[in-house]
Amino acid sequence: MKRLLDSGGRVIYPVNSSSSEVLGVKAYGSVTGIPGTIDLAVIAVPAPQVPGILQECVQKKVGAAAIISAGFAESGEPGRELESELVDIAYRGGLRFLGPNSMGHMDSSTCLSTVAWIKELKPGPVAVISQSGNYGEQIIYSGAAVGIGFSKFISSGNEADLRLEDYLEYLAQDEKTAIIAAYIEGLREGRRFFRLAKETTVRKPIIVIKSGGTAGSVRAARSHTGALAGSDEVYSGAFKQAGVIRVTDEGELCDVAVALLHQPLPMGNRVAILTIGGGLGVIAAEACEKAGLELAVLAPSTVARLNSYLPDRWSHANPVDVAGVGGARREIMYNSLWALMADGNIDAVLFQTPLVFGADHIASIAGFNAEETLAYQQMLKEQLSTVAQRVKEYGKPVFMVTAVTDAEAYPFLRGVGIPIYSSPYRAANVLRHLCWYYRYLNSASER
Amino acid sequence: MKRLLDSGGRVIYPVNSSSSEVLGVKAYGSVTGIPGTIDLAVIAVPAPQVPGILQECVQKKVGAAAIISAGFAESGEPGRELESELVDIAYRGGLRFLGPNSMGHMDSSTCLSTVAWIKELKPGPVAVISQSGNYGEQIIYSGAAVGIGFSKFISSGNEADLRLEDYLEYLAQDEKTAIIAAYIEGLREGRRFFRLAKETTVRKPIIVIKSGGTAGSVRAARSHTGALAGSDEVYSGAFKQAGVIRVTDEGELCDVAVALLHQPLPMGNRVAILTIGGGLGVIAAEACEKAGLELAVLAPSTVARLNSYLPDRWSHANPVDVAGVGGARREIMYNSLWALMADGNIDAVLFQTPLVFGADHIASIAGFNAEETLAYQQMLKEQLSTVAQRVKEYGKPVFMVTAVTDAEAYPFLRGVGIPIYSSPYRAANVLRHLCWYYRYLNSASER
Repeated sequence: MKRLLDSGGRVIYPVNSSSSEVLGVKAYGSVTGIPGTIDLAVIAVPAPQVPGILQECVQKKVGAAAIISAGFAESGEPGRELESELVDIAYRGGLRFLGPNSMGHMDSSTCLSTVAWIKELKPGPVAVISQSGNYGEQIIYSGAAVGIGFSKFISSGNEADLRLEDYLEYLAQDEKTAIIAAYIEGLREGRRFFRLAKETTVRKPIIVIKSGGTAGSVRAARSHTGALAGSDEVYSGAFKQAGVIRVTDEGELCDVAVALLHQPLPMGNRVAILTIGGGLGVIAAEACEKAGLELAVLAPSTVARLNSYLPDRWSHANPVDVAGVGGARREIMYNSLWALMADGNIDAVLFQTPLVFGADHIASIAGFNAEETLAYQQMLKEQLSTVAQRVKEYGKPVFMVTAVTDAEAYPFLRGVGIPIYSSPYRAANVLRHLCWYYRYLNSASER
Repeated sequence: MKRLLDSGGRVIYPVNSSSSEVLGVKAYGSVTGIPGTIDLAVIAVPAPQVPGILQECVQKKVGAAAIISAGFAESGEPGRELESELVDIAYRGGLRFLGPNSMGHMDSSTCLSTVAWIKELKPGPVAVISQSGNYGEQIIYSGAAVGIGFSKFISSGNEADLRLEDYLEYLAQDEKTAIIAAYIEGLREGRRFFRLAKETTVRKPIIVIKSGGTAGSVRAARSHTGALAGSDEVYSGAFKQAGVIRVTDEGELCDVAVALLHQPLPMGNRVAILTIGGGLGVIAAEACEKAGLELAVLAPSTVARLNSYLPDRWSHANPVDVAGVGGARREIMYNSLWALMADGNIDAVLFQTPLVFGADHIASIAGFNAEETLAYQQMLKEQLSTVAQRVKEYGKPVFMVTAVTDAEAYPFLRGVGIPIYSSPYRAANVLRHLCWYYRYLNSASER
């Protein structure tokens, strides 16, 4: 109720049997006693009272309800019966509902939230459907930490009436949503899901976490939402056929989402690595190859161009190790980057360079005074803005990779839309997903 | 030179052919012209001048040098000859040296740093040897971000004289060092390394990143330090036999180091998962099983104990899903944790719970006033301190796993020595390494 009040602009009618006022708002003894018409009922009372309340909603001609209350199918036989009752009442009364056992839902474009733990959320293009409220929270927190904004959040709960497939159908045509992310334990309408997914992924990426890859997780999912996890191989194959990007956890989900939001898809899997340090390049090469990417062979013209910028000792091959000139003479790094982006043998660039933005940090490393520090920051911003711009021009993704950075760097990088990854393994893994998705779209458009 | 001056307490003699003063300190025209005795020469002049300088050092009876200068074996034939010259001069003159092509070295106990980018570093028990200066920087930054303190850092460079094996031998007996971490491209004295490692790991963990798992990374390593990467299978087998923990990148290295520093080794691979949310438990179960860990079967007495704390709807099995009571009634979570720690069927606990510490954050979620917020923070601190204490008592590790946290949580968790992981995959992977190391130590002590 506090969340609904906070968002403002709505008429809220608390219903409570024992108080005439809730959080300073006049309360009613029953739903039917409310004077106005009602768009949405949010129900959070003990389970045995829910059927009665829902019946009142039907009488009051309420079309939609969010049932937060738990203690239904997830808690054993009596709860299962209670849940059937809800479905009957809603079906006969023409009411559709979320839950029960849901953590609520949120729409950032209308500032509607029935989720207790979501007070403020950066609006943005990613929608999340989660068959676990807590896991949904984990996704939202992980996303917020890397600057992702969200359009909708739906904790689908027991899915007694509205199901993940319904939300997917809605989000597929939602203009505020560019990417759909889902945490899935089991699908109640598998065929419908995969049909919808196939129609959707040619326009909007779908990223899913589907548990059930091991015996223990299947058991745990059954005890959690009663979901039949199904054969993992079957799911895996169906996701692939429908163009759905499957990830293992929320960290990977957010990594992929950030890349999809800000980078073009690579048109192939030939990667160039540009690095300030040989060792970094070695690990990046290993990360790329382990992810099934190919180390691009530089075109002779690119080698010639790099020869004109770089000292003789540069690696003369991919990974492009600029051999220590990255620090003091940064423009050389960026000139080398432009050379790689222009090379037709290269589909994507993995760019390893420290990104130190904080004034104190810069001063402590380089010994700069305030003026020099400011000039350095300015130069860095211009270079990175140019990277973002050329990524668009060439339609070729550039992934920044470094752990050598600071808190001040992130807001700027997010502002210009450059994803940054702490390790080449994370970056290579994301690139792998993007390459796969590009190939999928390509073959889908040929069909 | 700025780094050396900053640390204070040392007499620094700049040597420069063109200035009589460097950074405000009287400079000398040659090493031999310096009046006092010299403990360490730090050499950062163009490569062709290094042999002459080193010769002067020998004349001046300097016993040790750190050669930062690049342009030696890593840069082709003329450099290789120059490097041989250095070795000859040093050998004949009884001088030992670091590098060349090194980024310097650092000793936090004496505040000595010849590393340009290390200004301040939290002292601590982890020593790092890196065959790549930049990769070493990546390790140090990643470690600092998760609160690791460092005893020594050595960028071993071309290892013309002193080699990784020498540094390992030194660190093995260094009292300031409890864990040795290394980035390795290739070993010059493989047999010696593995003999030393085997002697060391029974007392001190060694964690290594060894590149060379793919063709491209082998090629890149050869071009970087000229290292012969060797067969990855041979290395892998030798690391295992010597009790060396092998990781893929600096993120994993730091995850493992944090756990080794703060947690006892699990005496087996039977893991219990304690979670506030079913979905979180499902993914954690999958992460554990994929890492080769076993989901512990709860002892009947543990189930009975949990029955007495938890509502009927709890999962009654591992993962232990407390079914939504984690939020409001947190003591129940911790009582459940004590029950799991006391269970002889359980070797380690993975504990999934939000850890919200920031006052604004708590207030926004729970609607607490200032006093209630303070009380909540106090309670959280007491509970977590008790966790840390019981971990010691039981000798059983507890890994906290959550992305639902804030910047304010970390300093406190570090203070009491509780590692926190953003994802169950990271935690399960660390646990896998720790289980393996325990088994290694156990079988080593039997031999």
